[in-house]
Amino acid sequence: METKIIIDTIWVLLTAKLVFFMNLGFAMVESGFARAKNCVNILSKNFIVFAVSSLGFLLLGWGLMFGDGNGFMGLKGLFFASGLDNSPATGEAYKGVYSSIAWTGVPFWAKFFFQLVFCGTAATIVSGAVAERIKYVSFIVFSFLMTTLIYPIVGHWVWGGGWLAGKGMFDFAGSTVVHSVGGWAALAGVLLLGPRFGKYTNGKINPIPGHNLSLATLGTFVLWFGWFGFNPGSTMTADPMAISHVAITTNIAAAAAIMSSTVLSWLLLGKPDLGMTLNGCLAGLVAITAPCAFVSVPSSIVIGLIAGILVVLAVIMFDRIKIDDPVGALSVHLVNGVFGTLAVGLFAQDKIAGVATGNGLFYGGGTKLLFAQLTGVVAVAAYTFIISFVAWAIIKAVMGIRVSLQEEIEGLDIGEHGNAAYPEFLSRKPAYSFLGTKEDK
Amino acid sequence: METKIIIDTIWVLLTAKLVFFMNLGFAMVESGFARAKNCVNILSKNFIVFAVSSLGFLLLGWGLMFGDGNGFMGLKGLFFASGLDNSPATGEAYKGVYSSIAWTGVPFWAKFFFQLVFCGTAATIVSGAVAERIKYVSFIVFSFLMTTLIYPIVGHWVWGGGWLAGKGMFDFAGSTVVHSVGGWAALAGVLLLGPRFGKYTNGKINPIPGHNLSLATLGTFVLWFGWFGFNPGSTMTADPMAISHVAITTNIAAAAAIMSSTVLSWLLLGKPDLGMTLNGCLAGLVAITAPCAFVSVPSSIVIGLIAGILVVLAVIMFDRIKIDDPVGALSVHLVNGVFGTLAVGLFAQDKIAGVATGNGLFYGGGTKLLFAQLTGVVAVAAYTFIISFVAWAIIKAVMGIRVSLQEEIEGLDIGEHGNAAYPEFLSRKPAYSFLGTKEDK
Amino acid sequence: METKIIIDTIWVLLTAKLVFFMNLGFAMVESGFARAKNCVNILSKNFIVFAVSSLGFLLLGWGLMFGDGNGFMGLKGLFFASGLDNSPATGEAYKGVYSSIAWTGVPFWAKFFFQLVFCGTAATIVSGAVAERIKYVSFIVFSFLMTTLIYPIVGHWVWGGGWLAGKGMFDFAGSTVVHSVGGWAALAGVLLLGPRFGKYTNGKINPIPGHNLSLATLGTFVLWFGWFGFNPGSTMTADPMAISHVAITTNIAAAAAIMSSTVLSWLLLGKPDLGMTLNGCLAGLVAITAPCAFVSVPSSIVIGLIAGILVVLAVIMFDRIKIDDPVGALSVHLVNGVFGTLAVGLFAQDKIAGVATGNGLFYGGGTKLLFAQLTGVVAVAAYTFIISFVAWAIIKAVMGIRVSLQEEIEGLDIGEHGNAAYPEFLSRKPAYSFLGTKEDK
Repeated sequence: METKIIIDTIWVLLTAKLVFFMNLGFAMVESGFARAKNCVNILSKNFIVFAVSSLGFLLLGWGLMFGDGNGFMGLKGLFFASGLDNSPATGEAYKGVYSSIAWTGVPFWAKFFFQLVFCGTAATIVSGAVAERIKYVSFIVFSFLMTTLIYPIVGHWVWGGGWLAGKGMFDFAGSTVVHSVGGWAALAGVLLLGPRFGKYTNGKINPIPGHNLSLATLGTFVLWFGWFGFNPGSTMTADPMAISHVAITTNIAAAAAIMSSTVLSWLLLGKPDLGMTLNGCLAGLVAITAPCAFVSVPSSIVIGLIAGILVVLAVIMFDRIKIDDPVGALSVHLVNGVFGTLAVGLFAQDKIAGVATGNGLFYGGGTKLLFAQLTGVVAVAAYTFIISFVAWAIIKAVMGIRVSLQEEIEGLDIGEHGNAAYPEFLSRKPAYSFLGTKEDK
Repeated sequence: METKIIIDTIWVLLTAKLVFFMNLGFAMVESGFARAKNCVNILSKNFIVFAVSSLGFLLLGWGLMFGDGNGFMGLKGLFFASGLDNSPATGEAYKGVYSSIAWTGVPFWAKFFFQLVFCGTAATIVSGAVAERIKYVSFIVFSFLMTTLIYPIVGHWVWGGGWLAGKGMFDFAGSTVVHSVGGWAALAGVLLLGPRFGKYTNGKINPIPGHNLSLATLGTFVLWFGWFGFNPGSTMTADPMAISHVAITTNIAAAAAIMSSTVLSWLLLGKPDLGMTLNGCLAGLVAITAPCAFVSVPSSIVIGLIAGILVVLAVIMFDRIKIDDPVGALSVHLVNGVFGTLAVGLFAQDKIAGVATGNGLFYGGGTKLLFAQLTGVVAVAAYTFIISFVAWAIIKAVMGIRVSLQEEIEGLDIGEHGNAAYPEFLSRKPAYSFLGTKEDK
Repeated sequence: METKIIIDTIWVLLTAKLVFFMNLGFAMVESGFARAKNCVNILSKNFIVFAVSSLGFLLLGWGLMFGDGNGFMGLKGLFFASGLDNSPATGEAYKGVYSSIAWTGVPFWAKFFFQLVFCGTAATIVSGAVAERIKYVSFIVFSFLMTTLIYPIVGHWVWGGGWLAGKGMFDFAGSTVVHSVGGWAALAGVLLLGPRFGKYTNGKINPIPGHNLSLATLGTFVLWFGWFGFNPGSTMTADPMAISHVAITTNIAAAAAIMSSTVLSWLLLGKPDLGMTLNGCLAGLVAITAPCAFVSVPSSIVIGLIAGILVVLAVIMFDRIKIDDPVGALSVHLVNGVFGTLAVGLFAQDKIAGVATGNGLFYGGGTKLLFAQLTGVVAVAAYTFIISFVAWAIIKAVMGIRVSLQEEIEGLDIGEHGNAAYPEFLSRKPAYSFLGTKEDK
């Protein structure tokens, strides 16, 4: 077989594996930022979600996203990814029903695997925001809907040859397609769920610290590592200049965001909060995901700096408006997914790593690209939020989405799973001081 | 040097590194599923075992496994992997004493490294089943025997051009060679060791929960990640169609097994036990290891579903017959190693990813392949179990294999290592309620 | 683009990612070996240090290290890595100001990324030795100096075409350039900081056990894994024979060092201490880093065995002379960085993996190579230690380097960050028994 196909396949598979590994990162960040009594539940959610995604994306998601169809959705080869396809043939030689992704010359299952891990990422983003009060079974059902009906449709619009691609919207590795989609779906769930018991009482915001910052830090490192698959891998071909460029813009944006979030939290909170530093890193990574291949290294510094500031302000803002997001998923993925997508319209430089995006606003390209990006942001927001809200609402009506108050207070680990994450360690149960209860055992 | 050699070497080395990383996975799964008082001991065993494997496989294991010899064992180039070898030459051009692995065109040390990490995996599987009562030094000695005399002989039969390969038995990445070998060796040890103090009392099975499910989950994710080296890497050549196919069957089987083990534990135990979900994942991965390159994606779903059911039933069954396996290693690696090997005989489709296996029973191939697989299962079982039993028995006679009851109750960490894993955290020592003792600090 | 460029770029980027991942390893080893009350601080340091390194190396480090200049430092293209450069052109075709690294035919940003992760490693080594008493802001400032002014200068001498390269000194992957530089910088800091409160009292050495050996073990596995990027990647070209050879010498040295450090600690301390085993592994890896491509596999066993012995003795020795290094960073990186560099002069065999080093002392090459290595060791020691000492002294004068005694006793997590790593777990605060205080809650 042609050497280029071999090399591209290695690249696509290895970077996909790195993205798969991000599931560990999410599991550790989310459980670390939550309380010990809900740890098993969070681990379970983050573990099973990739299994659900794998089956859901195989069953229907892939076909809806990449099947030949109209601007809104795929219509051919819908089920079990079993449509005709002679990959790795490309161009004229390609015969099959998944034309929109026929540009990358790798075998069919390599394409599927790479796209699957992205779908799984979108689904797992949801789990953090709804943590510590959602019913396990309801989360599983939503994840299935997410990976069969929600993510693939939006994915089709942007990456599957749909109407947003036609509008000239660019989202290199998924600030919108993956991160803001995960964020909007999470927001819908959070609004229907309401805040955790004890989070907002008598006009006060009660901080609920995470139980294990070692795990949260571990998870963030793993995510940063995995992002070196997420962004450079999104070339889906081993173009040396592009993948090197993307690796650096990705890393530099993360570094800049770490600094700005740390400094800002130091200024606002008096001390450099580790949680803000970690979420700053993730914010920079999310923000650079759309523009990583379209902007210069200096621009990646600016994008990162802004992302780090946005995430700190967003965390504070969501708390003020009583939207309870235990791990900051909305501030990281939704806010910075939107910002990163718009940043393409601001900072893009035509063909900087080979892609003809045209220039963004700051490089003399006017508002054309920015407008296309904004169209994408708004359209994706509307579709994802509405469909997700409906999905969550149906689940709520049919089986409920929130555990009982009793179970929430005692912890979802025992209630949902009959397990304890750390049965031997004596723990200080977080007191609900506003109830007048004391710390017990 | 030829481009193909360069690419294949990169592929073999990078996937070998992923398999190496599985050592971390095993360490975290096993320590997480055990009690805190034995945590240092388990970490130590899982850490040193790869060092012992590295030296043992270099000293003798490689030569016995791949040296030219007879159907039973290698006879040439036995010691220090120092026989004549002009790799990466292949075919007619190959001159050397390791002909059975001359089919892969990579440098000698790349072959050695890849095979070493598999040997290390077989050895580390043992450690979980014998955990919480085995003497450290005895485990080290057994590991050395495992990697010099046990694993390499069986490996020779199947992968070193030995008699089982001649019978037409297929084991793509080692459901038998690695996993069931590890499982049989562990079973022999468990039978000689006996159950942990307090596990079975007065006809009751006392659950002994793991001390840290965060680590166990982390470890399972790492193993799943590493399996993307284990299975696709076993091509030992970057064949795009094969490695893409194997990546997907591997992942889909894991996903299906996660779902079936979760659902079955939900039905049987009333709640979805996280430990069952994690072991379900591993069971699916073990089961697909032999057939990953020989079966279709739909077949991988079925294999995974069955594996997830088998592991739950096996965990319950081993407890009923009082075989005490703290982490479920036998249910995962032995039971599903056997099942996966037989699954080749059932689900194989000739040349589905390029290899001429013939069809399995379910695809019209009759029982020929199934019988070859069964022969392999039985022969490997007999050899491994008997030799391991003898090895454990000799170690028991010479130096003992079990720590004192006093040490077992107080924990192996202090007794064997003089360390505590978490010296600052106050812990609830698991009570031996049947003795009438109470929980103490 | 030429196939070789594509392949080399993949190799360089993927191995660089593995080296990046070592940041996680350092974070977990260091926090695991320290007390829970300082855990957030250590995590924060290890997290932000790579952000600082990324920006510092981009701003100035790269230019000083690889810019064309004199034997002492780079002078062209100093700032923002923005000098002229037409990589991946090599040889005659290269046009640019970073000639010393023009031998590797990969795109500019791939070179930068690979070198950046090495710079980051040198910086992060410092953090362990100064842990549990250093001010957060002071560490950040030092890290910035380290990655802009200290590491790049020495790096220029050896890898940037500077005067030590001209002397015939060889340091394949950085026993000197990365590890001993990190070690000398740390030593300077440790001397100015002094030991932790309570470590040495009334002539007694008080052991201060780490709070979480699970994390420390996890971290060491991650570092071992990352080293398979660190050493084999330092080819910066996918030479099959060289990268396979280096992977094996690296692994075998680690394995041998694990065995010798475990056995020696067993003999000296009565029991096989896990901390010694883990540091033994790291010692072997550091020691083989310089010679990995220049020595045979049997030599790598010997080098590993010696490294494992050295690290145990060094840990004991540093405690005797009251140099307080909470995690053993000096024993691992400094002592074995020096030893590994000298080992090239002893064990090198000319062209064993392709490089014309000449033979070392033990292979009939006389003392020529050994002398060049020794020159490197001394010169790097002098420069790094002196500059680092001055830098630390200035920081101390300007902003202080040590937290208050009160804060040190209560823990840096609350004092520096306002966070607690494990707010729910009840802990036994290590008692300062010499003060007559008792353990309190």
